[in-house]
Amino acid sequence: MKIVLATRNQGKIAELRRILDGIDVIGLEEFPDAPEVPETELTFAGNALLKARAIAAHTGLPAVADDSGLCVDAMNGMPGVFSARWSGGHGDDQGNLDLLLGQLSDVAPEHRGARFVCVAAIAWPSGEEETVEGRLDGVVIAVPRGTGGFGYDPIFVPEGDTRTTAEMAPEEKDAISHRGKAFAALADRIRTRP
Amino acid sequence: MKIVLATRNQGKIAELRRILDGIDVIGLEEFPDAPEVPETELTFAGNALLKARAIAAHTGLPAVADDSGLCVDAMNGMPGVFSARWSGGHGDDQGNLDLLLGQLSDVAPEHRGARFVCVAAIAWPSGEEETVEGRLDGVVIAVPRGTGGFGYDPIFVPEGDTRTTAEMAPEEKDAISHRGKAFAALADRIRTRP
Repeated sequence: MKIVLATRNQGKIAELRRILDGIDVIGLEEFPDAPEVPETELTFAGNALLKARAIAAHTGLPAVADDSGLCVDAMNGMPGVFSARWSGGHGDDQGNLDLLLGQLSDVAPEHRGARFVCVAAIAWPSGEEETVEGRLDGVVIAVPRGTGGFGYDPIFVPEGDTRTTAEMAPEEKDAISHRGKAFAALADRIRTRP
Repeated sequence: MKIVLATRNQGKIAELRRILDGIDVIGLEEFPDAPEVPETELTFAGNALLKARAIAAHTGLPAVADDSGLCVDAMNGMPGVFSARWSGGHGDDQGNLDLLLGQLSDVAPEHRGARFVCVAAIAWPSGEEETVEGRLDGVVIAVPRGTGGFGYDPIFVPEGDTRTTAEMAPEEKDAISHRGKAFAALADRIRTRP
């Protein structure tokens, strides 16, 4: 079986390939005419489904997509689906992180609970679709630490740990991360599909 | 009766004086040693009470304070209590407005519902305290209009109107605004206090 992952991000493709061992995972680079799908929905599941549907329709293959972000309790779950464009543009990791730290600067340590959330969706050419969610609970700290990962990793410390996810080895982060969990759950669904 | 309003903002003092006709409203400029109270709470009521309590304790007079902001549905009610420091610093109205517009740029018109919310609190020297809330429902538009008001007024259109609150005359805005309503409700409480 071939499955297309709705991303050009080689790191995500490699991660899904590891998790979906035995299934042929291909990326969007094999479909140069695939549409860019704006994330106009207000939920992770909504955005993941938008992308998975569009790519399944374009390629005729089962398509997997994900949407993920950091949900801060003190901000009613924001940045959430706005995580990658928090500072107003798209993909400015440093700007997004600096902005969130500035906004939270008056917020007491006991109110800094947060979670990384990822929803992975699969759309089958038949029109069927499914979503699964993975999450990682923790806190947002005030001073960034670590150089691994991306996005908000330097300011996120998972529950039960003292390191940020940017201070973990990639495999270690994969094993506990919201995206790792969501992709693993999705792999189960794909493998056990009747 | 004398009441102190926990602000140095002359516009707010003038507004409360108009609404509390017959009651002697004084501002913090008469108490140069009054403490600066950081807004560390996560609710409008919490922040308004923090300020009212601190100023009642400092002055020995009944103290009124308010906290207000813009709550956007698509952002789970944020900027909310972070409205005045949304872009990371304090009081950068233009930066806050530009940031919010950037964040909402992919959000469809039907998801741009929002409300201005104000909670006014009064703390009596006896230790009693009360809060009242005022709100103004509307939508956030994509292109700022008008030069009146402050903060997010140029991008907020109240329900049933086509103008932004920055395009209204001050008295007109006072009559419908979240702050106007909260202060009017507080005036009733003060006047009818046993």
